[in-house]
Amino acid sequence: MTAAERETVQGRLDDALHARIESALDNKTKPQGSLGYLERIASRIAMIQRTETPRITRARVLLFAADHGVTVNGVSAYPASVTAAMVRTAAAGNAAMSVLTRAVAESWADIDIIDVGVGTVLPALPGVTSERVANGTRDFLHDMAMTASQCEAAMRSGTEAVGRAIASGADVIALGEMGIGNTTSAAAVLSALTGAPVSESVGRGTGIDTQMLAHKQAVVECAVARHRGVTHAAPDGRVDPFAVLTCVGGFELAAMAGAAIAAAAARRVVLVDGFIATCAVLAAAMIDARVLDVVIFAHRSAEQGHARALAQFVTLGLPDEYARPLLDLDLRLGEGSGAALALPLLRAAACMLTEMATFDDAGVARATAPA
Amino acid sequence: MTAAERETVQGRLDDALHARIESALDNKTKPQGSLGYLERIASRIAMIQRTETPRITRARVLLFAADHGVTVNGVSAYPASVTAAMVRTAAAGNAAMSVLTRAVAESWADIDIIDVGVGTVLPALPGVTSERVANGTRDFLHDMAMTASQCEAAMRSGTEAVGRAIASGADVIALGEMGIGNTTSAAAVLSALTGAPVSESVGRGTGIDTQMLAHKQAVVECAVARHRGVTHAAPDGRVDPFAVLTCVGGFELAAMAGAAIAAAAARRVVLVDGFIATCAVLAAAMIDARVLDVVIFAHRSAEQGHARALAQFVTLGLPDEYARPLLDLDLRLGEGSGAALALPLLRAAACMLTEMATFDDAGVARATAPA
Repeated sequence: MTAAERETVQGRLDDALHARIESALDNKTKPQGSLGYLERIASRIAMIQRTETPRITRARVLLFAADHGVTVNGVSAYPASVTAAMVRTAAAGNAAMSVLTRAVAESWADIDIIDVGVGTVLPALPGVTSERVANGTRDFLHDMAMTASQCEAAMRSGTEAVGRAIASGADVIALGEMGIGNTTSAAAVLSALTGAPVSESVGRGTGIDTQMLAHKQAVVECAVARHRGVTHAAPDGRVDPFAVLTCVGGFELAAMAGAAIAAAAARRVVLVDGFIATCAVLAAAMIDARVLDVVIFAHRSAEQGHARALAQFVTLGLPDEYARPLLDLDLRLGEGSGAALALPLLRAAACMLTEMATFDDAGVARATAPA
Repeated sequence: MTAAERETVQGRLDDALHARIESALDNKTKPQGSLGYLERIASRIAMIQRTETPRITRARVLLFAADHGVTVNGVSAYPASVTAAMVRTAAAGNAAMSVLTRAVAESWADIDIIDVGVGTVLPALPGVTSERVANGTRDFLHDMAMTASQCEAAMRSGTEAVGRAIASGADVIALGEMGIGNTTSAAAVLSALTGAPVSESVGRGTGIDTQMLAHKQAVVECAVARHRGVTHAAPDGRVDPFAVLTCVGGFELAAMAGAAIAAAAARRVVLVDGFIATCAVLAAAMIDARVLDVVIFAHRSAEQGHARALAQFVTLGLPDEYARPLLDLDLRLGEGSGAALALPLLRAAACMLTEMATFDDAGVARATAPA
């Protein structure tokens, strides 16, 4: 069979499976549709795993950390040295995301912290995988953030982290990041990928004032314009998502993109944290459309560019309902903290499909009234 | 000291504690306020428990079940006999809420199913406490739903369930219900308590069509008007929330009200499920204002009266931010299913305050930029 023929066959199998999953949901002892969005997530997990009996038994949070040359322009409320301190705190199990992951999924989720290029060279730390590409990116206001081979290396560290996660039995790959300055990089990626004006893509990050925000917007606008010759080099003016990651990305963004592509190829649920992870996964989806089939968004970030990034997934073909994040708690911390909080909802959705009684089990007739 | 003097002293202690809690939150290694609503919930749990180191270690879901005489008027998509089947399914651990509770909090949450007046007398079932007031309420379109002493008995079953929960070490009391016809009763309670028109209080419940909805509205409107002489008997025309529960309530609503009052007296977090639980707890808060200090709303129900009920809490003095439910997943199942799903968020909020590193621990200077 040709690839196109294989795809047609798979499409038919998927359609038939989808019908069986929806029917299974409707036969559960509850008014039709009464578990709302949880039913949609159950259906999505089942379709990703291509089974009527999906399982969410192990989760791995991939926490990629790196530094950003663009911080020399004064775009963040914190100095770049904080990234290394954050890695240490996470390795010690005392960071927000360490605490939240333990609180909600201690028995079934673990964390892999991957140093893909923190500015300071750290000593070996328990729980930290060293896959350093460089001591942070270059300042993308003046240079390309990284070389093409550095971008490939960072993406490969994502691929390998997913390989380790799958080997450990993970059926959910959650993507998070740490890196002072990375809302600036993510906003530049978003604007370069979509043409979104900086007024839509750039937000206050860790908490900058209005004057710094205007400066951050100017930096992003200038950088996106500077690299346009490389990011839009194709004769038809189409954007090259790999070039975008190379020109204005960060090592942790490239790594998350690589991870999303690897997880999509392996049909694993990809739980996307907040604004930065969403921008990285957007680049991934523009490189490999199979990413669209496996993403679930954990939460609606308070960072203003997030809504714009989510909307772009719909433009790429993601059904509207799956561009809706599970949680809406005004989080803007990053670190995978929102993804950690959403993990129990994924497990609940899968269990609903596999463990809940059916109308037949319960000896209850389905209502005749319309649901 | 007089009660008023004691209250003044307690108010001062609470103010000082609140300042210490907010300061502790701001000293965590994260940009100020970056954990958004989770920080507000952490602060609330700490204030309920009156400690800077709150604990969420055991949760008990109280699932009150009863039947409703008003169902003879054809207000539900399901026959009343389904309530008994739901109790059996929950007792067997296969109901939605059984599955969801296990999925998200297996090691630290349990369920107490309390039969406060299911229409059919059930055999002894494991996990079901029998506190039957009667074989369902009377049809409140024509009679009072229950007598005053029946209402007291139902409320007492709530008090006793909270006593058992506290004895078992529960620091969260989640309130849920099962009972065919109880969105009709809850809508009547809401309209009687608040004067809300039936167009705002009555919704589609388990899923009725537009014609049945109009009929359900007419039933509620008529019932609320019929009982007005009793529910508003005071010379000043003020509503009597106990009389409302008696006239148009249900045994499970009265039990949830009793439970909320008992939990408030014991300063336990009350996690309120959806529309019906919210209406019952509203009556409780109008009987005893201390209930306002301990409620956390689990989710924004798809049942249309829920928003109206939440707004009434603000009118009673609940700060706006706490009338915001934790989840918004279009659930409309009841059974405590939304409360079950929100349990991990409570635990995460408490752990954040007790386990996360401070800026001092992490050796990171706080940002100087405004947060």
